[in-house]
Amino acid sequence: MSPDEFRRLGHRAIDWIADYWERVGDLPVLSGARPGETAAKLPSSAPETPDAWDDIWADLDRVVLPGLTHWQSPRFFGFFPANGSFPAILGDLLSTGLGVQGMLWATSPACTEIETRVLDWLGGLLGLPPDFLSTGPHGGGVIQGTASEATLVALCAARHRALRARPPGSPPPHLTMYASTQAHSSVVKAAMIAGLAHGPEDRAHLRLIGTDDRYAMRPDLLEAAVREDLAAGRTPFFGVATVGTTSTTAIDPLGPIARVCREHGLWLHVDAAFSGAACICPEFRGPIEDVGGADSFCFNPHKWLLTSFDCDCLWTRDRDSLVGALSVTPEYLRNAASASGEVIDYRDWQVPLGRRFRALKLWLVLRHYGAEGLRAYIRGHVRSAEVFEALVRADSRFEVVTPRTSSLVCFRLRPQDGEAPAETDARNRRLLEAINASGRAYLTHTVLPPVATGGPASAPRYVLRMAIGATLTEERHVREAWELIRDLAS
Amino acid sequence: MSPDEFRRLGHRAIDWIADYWERVGDLPVLSGARPGETAAKLPSSAPETPDAWDDIWADLDRVVLPGLTHWQSPRFFGFFPANGSFPAILGDLLSTGLGVQGMLWATSPACTEIETRVLDWLGGLLGLPPDFLSTGPHGGGVIQGTASEATLVALCAARHRALRARPPGSPPPHLTMYASTQAHSSVVKAAMIAGLAHGPEDRAHLRLIGTDDRYAMRPDLLEAAVREDLAAGRTPFFGVATVGTTSTTAIDPLGPIARVCREHGLWLHVDAAFSGAACICPEFRGPIEDVGGADSFCFNPHKWLLTSFDCDCLWTRDRDSLVGALSVTPEYLRNAASASGEVIDYRDWQVPLGRRFRALKLWLVLRHYGAEGLRAYIRGHVRSAEVFEALVRADSRFEVVTPRTSSLVCFRLRPQDGEAPAETDARNRRLLEAINASGRAYLTHTVLPPVATGGPASAPRYVLRMAIGATLTEERHVREAWELIRDLAS
Repeated sequence: MSPDEFRRLGHRAIDWIADYWERVGDLPVLSGARPGETAAKLPSSAPETPDAWDDIWADLDRVVLPGLTHWQSPRFFGFFPANGSFPAILGDLLSTGLGVQGMLWATSPACTEIETRVLDWLGGLLGLPPDFLSTGPHGGGVIQGTASEATLVALCAARHRALRARPPGSPPPHLTMYASTQAHSSVVKAAMIAGLAHGPEDRAHLRLIGTDDRYAMRPDLLEAAVREDLAAGRTPFFGVATVGTTSTTAIDPLGPIARVCREHGLWLHVDAAFSGAACICPEFRGPIEDVGGADSFCFNPHKWLLTSFDCDCLWTRDRDSLVGALSVTPEYLRNAASASGEVIDYRDWQVPLGRRFRALKLWLVLRHYGAEGLRAYIRGHVRSAEVFEALVRADSRFEVVTPRTSSLVCFRLRPQDGEAPAETDARNRRLLEAINASGRAYLTHTVLPPVATGGPASAPRYVLRMAIGATLTEERHVREAWELIRDLAS
Repeated sequence: MSPDEFRRLGHRAIDWIADYWERVGDLPVLSGARPGETAAKLPSSAPETPDAWDDIWADLDRVVLPGLTHWQSPRFFGFFPANGSFPAILGDLLSTGLGVQGMLWATSPACTEIETRVLDWLGGLLGLPPDFLSTGPHGGGVIQGTASEATLVALCAARHRALRARPPGSPPPHLTMYASTQAHSSVVKAAMIAGLAHGPEDRAHLRLIGTDDRYAMRPDLLEAAVREDLAAGRTPFFGVATVGTTSTTAIDPLGPIARVCREHGLWLHVDAAFSGAACICPEFRGPIEDVGGADSFCFNPHKWLLTSFDCDCLWTRDRDSLVGALSVTPEYLRNAASASGEVIDYRDWQVPLGRRFRALKLWLVLRHYGAEGLRAYIRGHVRSAEVFEALVRADSRFEVVTPRTSSLVCFRLRPQDGEAPAETDARNRRLLEAINASGRAYLTHTVLPPVATGGPASAPRYVLRMAIGATLTEERHVREAWELIRDLAS
């Protein structure tokens, strides 16, 4: 393809995307494709000779679009959002166009240094303690693909530090790690990958700590579990606290959890994948006020800070342990800059060796919106969530199930008099199916365990999640979603 | 940013990339930036208010370009290439523009089904056995970020299968894994992440098998190591064979290695990260003729098949073990389609949960070039490597150090009479530095261990690697690089 052909097709692709973003709010949010329907539209083998670009364009509408759930729709309220934005798309495009590898500082210094600097910028906006930044003696930030990878590398760093601290020749310790029962599934997955669980139910090395009536980790139970493991001769080494759990955006209390971890020498990782973005606003920063007691912290600009996937930002105050856990240097990767120790080689901060120039999109997002613009965007969604919460509370058929901590509202149809819990759940499930079948909004659900300490919830509850944060979502979309839900509930 | 502003800026970005590809061959390949030089051009904190786009464009030339090593230059011969191409850039752009999450089939069916189908296409072009394809009973392909991740998930699948096979209640086995001393550093890194090595030198669970005089794994030594571990009561579970090692593109003999692995129940993973691309040409397919004896196979279209990073393709004939090793299903990810078992949820085939629509770029590459076009591209580079090899051989000051197996030529200045090995190495190092300082070509080096069985090489050798495979590289660039090398050696 000649550069001129690329210009022509590239302009067309840009226009196609602009058109898509203009019409995405009108498309049914949830794909109606049945299993195999998309695949059946494709030939069974690769073309031997080139396909025409007119056919390729046509297939975007014929094959691709009907098989998509539109995460960029302003009516997407499922899971957590996957924030794209025009500046991020441009940054990502430039990154792909440049096609450089940032595995070593030496393989493109700007790829590393812009990342380090932009992570310092963003850490500053979050109010992270200075020792999490690259200007601190042992700190710094790095872009990971996802929070799952951040958890895994934090685990590896924690294990490296714990094992390094033991006297040479001592027998292999029985390592134990801790997270709440409401922590993200990636904690269990990280334990499985790291060889600390032989399946999702294996608890030989992994303790899932109970939560309070707001689904936040109970530090007293954490402390008891750590002490029990210590008394049994085991080696507690790693804790994960969550700021904004996936089910309900519950907030684990970082201060007391950090005290337990510090006292017993555990590495504390804070997973703020979704809610962390809100911490750029001083008034929403309370949940991470005590993050200084942690060893690592991450959140995903690709969830709620307008930066197209993938972009998870991880900071640590102990980069030596991270590098120690992940560094292998064969001859073909040796170079003078790395040997001098004055540069960062990000390959040693992540699972893969190769890496894209992902900082470019984050840099452009921060520059295009400015801190003010990003804060205004977050505040708008929180206000919309307040509006939605008030609407739910004003309708006696519904209840808000857990305290709202940012822009996720967990709600459901109330139990009717004498109704069995399973029937309440079934009514809520039918409501969710009706919402999503309408194509006019998309929500997902969770099931919350019973709360032990007081309150009416004595059985698991099927709950609808209204996650407000898609890039294009405005208050009117939230009000329209509520009207749809209200009407369908009738 | 309005859609119209995005159109305007997007067209400018496309034009900027087209211009970059037109001029990249004229830029000094290796960045001359000193440590800290790029960072010093950036403010120390994020902008509070938006920056103007004119300033952002200007910074691409002022800040970014001087800090890049130009991987897309036709004069880039370092490491292995990072293939970008215009169709791949368009596919990646559309993926970012659509911004969908492919973690579950249900979160965008087309994202999963196009990936599955395109991996079947590509597997067909490679001549993979049918049980590696999704049409086989337990097979299928998936896009990983990198070969490092492919090795890690293959390890996890192997471990899952090995542990599942043991009688319930049996004591935890002492697992052992195997790769050659020339395998990629990601094998050691995967062992570290998986908890099977507590540092790059830890060999409690990891055996690095010796190689022959072509740096290929010796199956007899593999078999001896496996038998020794079995005799000691250990549990061999995982082997990695390399088709195209990073240092020299040595080719491990898959047939004999697979026989050892099969006999003793090991999962065999084949890492063909670079050289696998050549297997789309029947005449270069010999090295993977016996891949049917393996359990998984991967190669990187982002290295030598015109697909912009990141795109590693992994196939397995035992997807149940892969999914078993990586699947954790919390309530918020449950859905009817997954429960039915008739769809693929790729989150269970990879480390992260979230995933981009990466199949789009691979789909567009296959359609734009067609199989014929891709084969012609591979053949062109192999021919250029033959030319380069002949030029080296014709100059008595130089020697070709290892047999060329695809498009990498390993060569060096010959030892002079009575010269100490260290001095030969130093002359070659100075030559490499001079080449790279010229800006007119970029090569990297490796150090090869002595070959035990005959031959003159009794000490480690510092060797220059000429890796031909960058998208824009034509025979004239290779000839020009040789002229530069020849002149600098004088």
